[in-house]
Parts: sequence; C-alpha cells; structure tokens
Amino acid sequence: MSRLIQRVRVTRLTLDGGASTVRSSEREDVLAAEEPLEIRIGEDPFSVTMRTPGDDFDLVAGFLVSEGVIGAADELISLRFCAGEDEDGRQTFNVVQAQLRPDVSVPDLHRHVYTTSSCGICGTASIEAIRKSSRFAPADDPLRLSARALAELPERLRAGQKLFSKTGGVHAAGLFTAQGELLCLREDVGRHNAVDKVVGWALREHKLPLSGTVLQVSGRASFELVQKAAMAGIPMLAAVSASSSLAVELAKQLGLTLVGFSRGTSLNVYTGSERVELIAETISR
Amino acid sequence: MSRLIQRVRVTRLTLDGGASTVRSSEREDVLAAEEPLEIRIGEDPFSVTMRTPGDDFDLVAGFLVSEGVIGAADELISLRFCAGEDEDGRQTFNVVQAQLRPDVSVPDLHRHVYTTSSCGICGTASIEAIRKSSRFAPADDPLRLSARALAELPERLRAGQKLFSKTGGVHAAGLFTAQGELLCLREDVGRHNAVDKVVGWALREHKLPLSGTVLQVSGRASFELVQKAAMAGIPMLAAVSASSSLAVELAKQLGLTLVGFSRGTSLNVYTGSERVELIAETISR
Repeated sequence: MSRLIQRVRVTRLTLDGGASTVRSSEREDVLAAEEPLEIRIGEDPFSVTMRTPGDDFDLVAGFLVSEGVIGAADELISLRFCAGEDEDGRQTFNVVQAQLRPDVSVPDLHRHVYTTSSCGICGTASIEAIRKSSRFAPADDPLRLSARALAELPERLRAGQKLFSKTGGVHAAGLFTAQGELLCLREDVGRHNAVDKVVGWALREHKLPLSGTVLQVSGRASFELVQKAAMAGIPMLAAVSASSSLAVELAKQLGLTLVGFSRGTSLNVYTGSERVELIAETISR
Repeated sequence: MSRLIQRVRVTRLTLDGGASTVRSSEREDVLAAEEPLEIRIGEDPFSVTMRTPGDDFDLVAGFLVSEGVIGAADELISLRFCAGEDEDGRQTFNVVQAQLRPDVSVPDLHRHVYTTSSCGICGTASIEAIRKSSRFAPADDPLRLSARALAELPERLRAGQKLFSKTGGVHAAGLFTAQGELLCLREDVGRHNAVDKVVGWALREHKLPLSGTVLQVSGRASFELVQKAAMAGIPMLAAVSASSSLAVELAKQLGLTLVGFSRGTSLNVYTGSERVELIAETISR
C-alpha cells in the first residue's frame, strides 16, 4: 500500500460564516500517488501514462487490449519491470516492458502518434478512424441483469474501494457478474487506467472476452470507456455520473447497454435496455 | 448552444426500496456533446482531442500554450476551421488549422509521440522529460487572496456553468482575479480541455502571463493541471476535489499555490500558503 498513497503536510482552513472567522491548522493529509509509467513493447517505447502505482502489469496488459494490440493471454509472452533508479538509487518501477508473441503485429509508431494512457480513443491518426474494431461481439451477448442488482453496484463498488476511503481522490472500475458478484476492482487517479487495470486482469486470467459481465465505473461514461468495454467484450457499462453524446452513439452502434446516473434508487438506461430486467415486482408506466 | 448538447430518449428506472417496486418511464435526457477535434499546425496533423464543441479556437490556442509551442498572441497568426463534411453533407467544424509565426519552432512529431488533448503531460518521449519548462515564472508572483474570497470560488464557478446545469456532466475551469472577479469560464466534458480553453482565451486576449490570477477547477488537481497552470503563468490552482501526490510535488517545485477540497466552508492548502491571507478576523491555532 505504501506506494499507493503519500502523506503530506497541509494547511487546513475552516471558515465559519456566522462568526466570520477563519481557522488555520496544520495537519497530515493522505494523497493518492500519481507517477508516470512508461510502457515498452520489446525495446521500443510505446506509451507513457500517469497512473497510481500498483497493478501495473494489469494496467499494461489492459492498455494493450484497449489499443487493439492483443486480445488473448497467449499473445502476451511476458511483462517485467525494467531497471530504473531515482536520485537516491531506489528502483522506481516506472517502466514496464511487454514481450509479445512474435506473430502479433504492433501498430507502428506513426499510427500511435496521438495515443495516450488516459485517452484511449486518440490512438489513430485521423478523426475518421477513432473507432477501433473489437475482435469480440458484445452486441450478441445474452446478459440479463435485474434493475435492482444493477442499482446496487455503485454501493458495492464504493464499499470495495480501499484507496478512495483513504484519499477521497481516486476513480474505480469494478467488474461484476449478472448476479452482482464482484470479480475484480481496481482504483487509479485516472479513470481510464482503472478500466485498463480491470481489463488487463481479465486478460491475464484468461477471461477475455468478458461476456456476461457488467463494468461499473465511479465517474462519467465517455466515448473512450465505451470503446474500452467493447474491446474487452463487456456488454454493459454503468456509470455513476453522466454519459456524453458520443458514448451513447457508440454504445448504440456496438450493441452495448449503457447506464448513467446510477445512484442507488434511480438510474438512466441510454441504450440496450432489453438487458435490464424489471422482474416481477415491476410497475411499468 | 445547439452543438453543446444533444437530446436523447432514455429509460429512467426508479427503485423504491420499501415497496420493492421498479418504475420505468421513457423521457428525454440532455447530454453534453462530445466530438473529436483534430488540431493541425499548417498542413501537419498535430493532435486529436475529444472535446465538447464550442470555443474551439480557444481550445487549440490553449493546447498549443500548454504544450509549450507558443506563449504569446503574436506567435499565432491565424486559426481556421478546415472544410469537412459529415454523411449528410453538413460542415463538421471538427478540424482546426493553426498558422504559426514562421520563426516558431514546432516540436517534431517524434517528440509528440505520446501527446494528447486530455493528457498534457505525455507530450514527451521519456519519463525524465515529463516536466515542461514554462517561459513564465509563477513562483515570483505577488498574488495575495483572502481565504474567504478563495472559498467562494467553487460556488461562483458553479453559478456560471451553463452547460452543467443542463447536463450534470461537464467539467469547468474559471479564471478569477484576487478580488474574486470572474475573468473567463469554460466548460468541457474533458477537464483538461476546459483549462486549455481558458488559457487559449487568455492568449488570444493578449493576457499571458496570467499573473495575479487564480484558476478554479471543478474536479481534481492532477499533475497535468498544475503543469498547464504553470505554462500560462497562473500562480494559484484551486480544485474542488483531491490533489494527487505528483500535483503537490510539481506545485512545490514551481512555486505555485495548490488548493484542494475547496468546499465553501473549508479547504486544504497544499503548497504556497503564504498567498492565502487569513486577514484580520482570523484565528490561527
């Protein structure tokens, strides 16, 4: 846990409107750690992302899935940290080298000119090509989930967030079964990284495609997150906050179920509502 | 406003715990628009970002400042939309071409191999070089701001958010004077874009460096946002949510004041607390 958080001294100011006073106190605050991670394929630099250290192999594997480089565990031969030291001679663990199966074709650097970590959709050199094609087909996924199980996911996600409870400053992505069972939860200062970490876990566990699962995220649903879900074969993406217009458009095109403003007692189903079962006790009007 | 939002049909589910019922209703929902924007320098593609349409020239100008390409209005000769049509023959307004002064050196494509829109810090090819050097020196900025004025900024920012009130799904960045006067407010689905739009507005208004100002943002304070503030010469960055460890580290190095968890009646000052005045009525303890 030590690399996930960092303790700093902070000046806490408290304002009291009534008495017009400002109280100042020094205290310790716990921050989510954020460090750069360089991803190399073989000897070649592929991308750099700012991430919360931890689950770095999952992050790298998931990023490679999201970028369409790999889609099965046997295409990834190995992952290892490269030697790297900070000023004090400590290993930094901030460079990961991925060895791919020789027949896996790596997109050339030029194609990846706009790629980054936190912006999965920019991995192509033209607007026309922003949409990546997935080798999986979430549109055909027979997943069915009760509205009640779906509505409970944000609370289950929050309950599993170890880092958030300490820092209040990280995003989370959780993969659940149709029965609401948590399969994998990952946290990161970057919400795209949290999703990549979940997808990378699944690849390394030989679980791709992730048919029959729901991905619950703590923030908004953007185009990139819909894209990442599709690349991993996840048929349903649920977000605590709003969806963007392009997220809805892409989810519709790909046959994904997209849920937003999932707040425990209410939620919006933007696309694919046939996967959400209103069950016996439902009143439809 | 029409391009900033999009109306979609949504299935709204409401769960009532007591009666164990699920209500389903169809209604219209308003989403924040998200579309790709390609940025070209002359004829050369430079970057692609997913953004909320609107203030695109500000976004491009600000992105070029954040990336260290330009730092003054006269280095930017012109900005124009390139012709581009969608399937229905409508102009898309999704490609902006920037013409720079001939003596401005454009970083070569290789250096920008990791750059994107929503990840300002990845514009360099190695971890050692993630920190860009600003031509301005916010460390020397004599800005002083009362704790009370600072604590009021989130509310002022929210009050000025036209798009958020419609969609509940966009970030905002607002530039304020030391007296709490709003100079510029911009919204976007991407929080980095909102900041770039503010910085681009300032460049185009010949206001760089932004000495004596405070940048209030709606979300978290990441490394990238501290970097962007420094590139524009802004001496104080205040965030409604948490700061990451690297944001605090960079702010300390650069002499920026960094404020987090600014919630109206309390806030945390991580670095540069000498700029926050506790004034006469303060009780320090």
